[in-house]
Amino acid sequence: MTYGKEPIMDIAQLAHVELFSPKPEKTVDFFKKFLGMTETARSGQSVYLRAYEEMYHNSLKITESKEAGLGHAGWRTTSPQALQRRVEEVKAAGLGKGWIDGDIGHGEAFQFTTPDGHNMELFFDVDYYKPQDHEKTKLLNRATKRPSQGVPVRRLDHLNLMSSNPGKDNQFMTDALGFRVREQIQDNGNVVASWISVSNLVHEVAFMQEPQQEKGKLHHLCYWYGIPQNLYELADLLKDHDHFIEVPPNKHGISQAFCMYVHEPGGNRIELFGDSGYLILDPTFEPVIWEMEDVPGNGDTWIGSEFPESWWTQGTPITSPKIVNR
Amino acid sequence: MTYGKEPIMDIAQLAHVELFSPKPEKTVDFFKKFLGMTETARSGQSVYLRAYEEMYHNSLKITESKEAGLGHAGWRTTSPQALQRRVEEVKAAGLGKGWIDGDIGHGEAFQFTTPDGHNMELFFDVDYYKPQDHEKTKLLNRATKRPSQGVPVRRLDHLNLMSSNPGKDNQFMTDALGFRVREQIQDNGNVVASWISVSNLVHEVAFMQEPQQEKGKLHHLCYWYGIPQNLYELADLLKDHDHFIEVPPNKHGISQAFCMYVHEPGGNRIELFGDSGYLILDPTFEPVIWEMEDVPGNGDTWIGSEFPESWWTQGTPITSPKIVNR
Amino acid sequence: MTYGKEPIMDIAQLAHVELFSPKPEKTVDFFKKFLGMTETARSGQSVYLRAYEEMYHNSLKITESKEAGLGHAGWRTTSPQALQRRVEEVKAAGLGKGWIDGDIGHGEAFQFTTPDGHNMELFFDVDYYKPQDHEKTKLLNRATKRPSQGVPVRRLDHLNLMSSNPGKDNQFMTDALGFRVREQIQDNGNVVASWISVSNLVHEVAFMQEPQQEKGKLHHLCYWYGIPQNLYELADLLKDHDHFIEVPPNKHGISQAFCMYVHEPGGNRIELFGDSGYLILDPTFEPVIWEMEDVPGNGDTWIGSEFPESWWTQGTPITSPKIVNR
Amino acid sequence: MTYGKEPIMDIAQLAHVELFSPKPEKTVDFFKKFLGMTETARSGQSVYLRAYEEMYHNSLKITESKEAGLGHAGWRTTSPQALQRRVEEVKAAGLGKGWIDGDIGHGEAFQFTTPDGHNMELFFDVDYYKPQDHEKTKLLNRATKRPSQGVPVRRLDHLNLMSSNPGKDNQFMTDALGFRVREQIQDNGNVVASWISVSNLVHEVAFMQEPQQEKGKLHHLCYWYGIPQNLYELADLLKDHDHFIEVPPNKHGISQAFCMYVHEPGGNRIELFGDSGYLILDPTFEPVIWEMEDVPGNGDTWIGSEFPESWWTQGTPITSPKIVNR
Repeated sequence: MTYGKEPIMDIAQLAHVELFSPKPEKTVDFFKKFLGMTETARSGQSVYLRAYEEMYHNSLKITESKEAGLGHAGWRTTSPQALQRRVEEVKAAGLGKGWIDGDIGHGEAFQFTTPDGHNMELFFDVDYYKPQDHEKTKLLNRATKRPSQGVPVRRLDHLNLMSSNPGKDNQFMTDALGFRVREQIQDNGNVVASWISVSNLVHEVAFMQEPQQEKGKLHHLCYWYGIPQNLYELADLLKDHDHFIEVPPNKHGISQAFCMYVHEPGGNRIELFGDSGYLILDPTFEPVIWEMEDVPGNGDTWIGSEFPESWWTQGTPITSPKIVNR
Repeated sequence: MTYGKEPIMDIAQLAHVELFSPKPEKTVDFFKKFLGMTETARSGQSVYLRAYEEMYHNSLKITESKEAGLGHAGWRTTSPQALQRRVEEVKAAGLGKGWIDGDIGHGEAFQFTTPDGHNMELFFDVDYYKPQDHEKTKLLNRATKRPSQGVPVRRLDHLNLMSSNPGKDNQFMTDALGFRVREQIQDNGNVVASWISVSNLVHEVAFMQEPQQEKGKLHHLCYWYGIPQNLYELADLLKDHDHFIEVPPNKHGISQAFCMYVHEPGGNRIELFGDSGYLILDPTFEPVIWEMEDVPGNGDTWIGSEFPESWWTQGTPITSPKIVNR
Repeated sequence: MTYGKEPIMDIAQLAHVELFSPKPEKTVDFFKKFLGMTETARSGQSVYLRAYEEMYHNSLKITESKEAGLGHAGWRTTSPQALQRRVEEVKAAGLGKGWIDGDIGHGEAFQFTTPDGHNMELFFDVDYYKPQDHEKTKLLNRATKRPSQGVPVRRLDHLNLMSSNPGKDNQFMTDALGFRVREQIQDNGNVVASWISVSNLVHEVAFMQEPQQEKGKLHHLCYWYGIPQNLYELADLLKDHDHFIEVPPNKHGISQAFCMYVHEPGGNRIELFGDSGYLILDPTFEPVIWEMEDVPGNGDTWIGSEFPESWWTQGTPITSPKIVNR
Repeated sequence: MTYGKEPIMDIAQLAHVELFSPKPEKTVDFFKKFLGMTETARSGQSVYLRAYEEMYHNSLKITESKEAGLGHAGWRTTSPQALQRRVEEVKAAGLGKGWIDGDIGHGEAFQFTTPDGHNMELFFDVDYYKPQDHEKTKLLNRATKRPSQGVPVRRLDHLNLMSSNPGKDNQFMTDALGFRVREQIQDNGNVVASWISVSNLVHEVAFMQEPQQEKGKLHHLCYWYGIPQNLYELADLLKDHDHFIEVPPNKHGISQAFCMYVHEPGGNRIELFGDSGYLILDPTFEPVIWEMEDVPGNGDTWIGSEFPESWWTQGTPITSPKIVNR
């Protein structure tokens, strides 16, 4: 029996994401009308939203901005001690920005960036959502009754970030925060994309190559259903209401998740997970390495059509050359 | 910020289960013909099986025995150090039986029992399955090609054990092994059933009250699909081939898993998970407590018909009064 | 080659149904909020509704009444000539009531009753729904855009009527209107229930024995989805909003349809079809005869739990002994 | 009320199809191993197959041939009288070839061709399949038990034929045989493709433009499931066993069917229907006319990616330029 270094288990989950939108009301309407999310607060230029099975006060903050993109990603630690340990590591990596008192929905948080400049924060204290009487359900593990609006998502799943150097971001997240590499696309030894996680999920965050070497972009944010057929219901609804479906429902090879991609009115790409694919329970799981040439038709989509060019090249903020949506 | 005790994260997963069967060939045929599992070894009175997405050599050992029931459950630790720590705690609880050299598919293991007498073992070293050439797939995170036989299950999910004292077993598993209580049925303050886990799943094991206070029984073993509709395909197939479906496909309230229960020819109850319900990513998740009176029609099945009497009373080995299968 | 009598093909479809409700606003809200139907007209004590893929002006008329039950069923003929031929036969059977000028959504109609007294009408001329601009869709075979409200049904499917003498009603419908018997439950040679159709569907109407020999009752009305998983979405939604699910989603043996039964607030039983089972394309299809003793667990539900007592005994109007809903 | 000409209702269904295959054993294996069909007879260079819910002796005849393509299509009439009437019309159109004594599975048949040269036959007498004891099921409307092999199809659905002049074939089928036009693609008034039916289905046969004006080609043959998710199970299985999926599961705009296209080893395109879309119950249904420019992304696939070039250009026999399969 070999006694190596034990894994770091200090980050628990992706707890919330802030999205920038140049059309905040349309963005908020999209999440409410079609994805069945509900508004829990407004403050300044921001609106806070939650999915009906989320126990916390919010998982999504929409903030008005000139351009679409990532505001920040919020990570919850497994304990207060874990928070302290990770803050020390982030500081040591020279990427710390400092503590804030918190925000609507959580307590004090330590802000930092990835090497590529994506804004993130670490925190432990959270506020749980207090359901109103008419929202209370007999299904005791469900935070609030299922809404009758849209095809309602159940919880935040993950984030995908474009990076000028995904290998470097990947290294920071694994070294400083304890993420484990689950799947990776390589091209002649270079990291093209990397899916990493702190839980049994294949990823809470992925980093992929921004082809123009631009920094700090968002590729997409993903919410989860757990039921593959729900994607077809949502796709039918969105198509009929003239929303852009960039990738129709299909099974990813990487992660085996059943997925689809749409663009919200503010311009950000939103993924929906019909099911989250396989879970990693093996504590010595070896990263799955894909060569770039094997990805189209196998790694991107196991069953569906290959991903369109736009998926590989366009993040938010959108910079030239802009891919024109239909 | 409160600095409490940090959680134990030493057990990674339920890695395999041994089932006793008085009709071992029929039991093996059932798992192969209808659930699409494949045989990886035979030794003595035992046959070893695996599901097509399992990376390990086997997850199921069928052993010939006079009566149906649990042989043992095998837990894999997160590291060799974790194994040492847990063995010390089990010894301290007075439930250790000692080390064995291993079995087909894993290395040295420490055997112990629950307070109620269910046989279990802890180990770290495992053997990965080596696919033959014709089994290799382009889906690199899948261990072997999907079989064309039956409605093939993807991986072992969990175990449910009947106990003369579920509260006591629950306490041992949480104290000595670090399991966390996720959901619980209580009746006047007594633990009727408890779902506990070491991962993001709601449970890898549950303990429920054996109504005659008999000890060491198996309630059921569960394999996972990830796709709810698969349960209907399997149910149609099993019904048409005269197998007993005790509980048809429905959504559990507890865990929100989409489930069904059948009996394999040896007499053990087998559950199938269409999807595994919600995941617990919240590190301070509070156990969901159900009062027994609120369970029928809500906690057992959220949508389906209430569970039959047999589900609440009969485990294996089957003792009087025997519930007659149709 | 035998030259028998050629089949009558004069009735095309069940075009609309009128339901009586003692709580008309709650009934209308139920169909709108949860089943995604839209209101197309109001007149007197009646509200007219349609599903989003229905081309006609309406398929459901809710009329205020002291008791729940069937208002009437409207059958559209294949041609004006066919209408004349069927009217003659109904008159000859002594069950005709006479012509009316029509109603909102259709032209002149000939009213009649079944031998048991259920009100029905025959007509040919219909009004097609004229979508407003914001309702128009690029899916040219869809009447109007898919609504974002509830889990929207797609079209009216069939009707099930309780009868003091189902064999007699069955005979009238086949002789006078050309219905063909598709499946039947018999008990010692007596017709317990009969599923009959004029199209490739297994039934547009069924007649089943009212156990107290009461006359003219409605058993249920059914709307169609085409997608089995939709029933789980609807069941989850209705359960969470405290509506009564009498039979959870399951596969009928008879017809093989994937079905569920709920009660609308006015008290009428509503069935939903996830898929409509097998189609009958064989022009010499022999009726499938079930002996009553083989029905529970095979004919009622092929996979699910047997139907509850209430399903076999209670129609609307509800007369004593009333089955108490949970 | 207008008294127009009454519709012809003399053809009941597409009863069987003969496929030519240059690799007959591989073709037969494909239908047996993956689509769960069973062999019911062999004779000369032909193998006869049926799906488990088909009542007739066979629905598919695989005949060895130098090139893939259509052998012939067999239509069953609604009565012997209807057969006589249609034969007269076909003769009058100058396309009759004469009577044969029948084939394994049906009695005397009248052979003819479409204007483009596709071989067809009309007949009334059929042989029903006689299940062996171990094949008999308690589900009385199912011909034989569900097989445990592959993802078993339930029945033959339709045929799509390429034509040098689809408008002309369309006219013959409607005039001589009573087919009704359901949906059509037009380009500057020319018929590019036409979906026609004699039943409530949107089509039993479609004709589409062969871009090189070649005659008599097969575009595809389709079998039906009724359950959309089944397509994903089959697609996963076929992909993993290196079969070519030309169009992944998606929702057609035209017909609204949930579909996928694969190529069998002999080279013929096979479609699978997850559900058959909407049914046409309206006796005065107006054909849905699509302009060619509106088809891509709406009419071909309502949700999925646009169809590949190969779908629009390649039929069997395959002639130059051959589209290379991956």
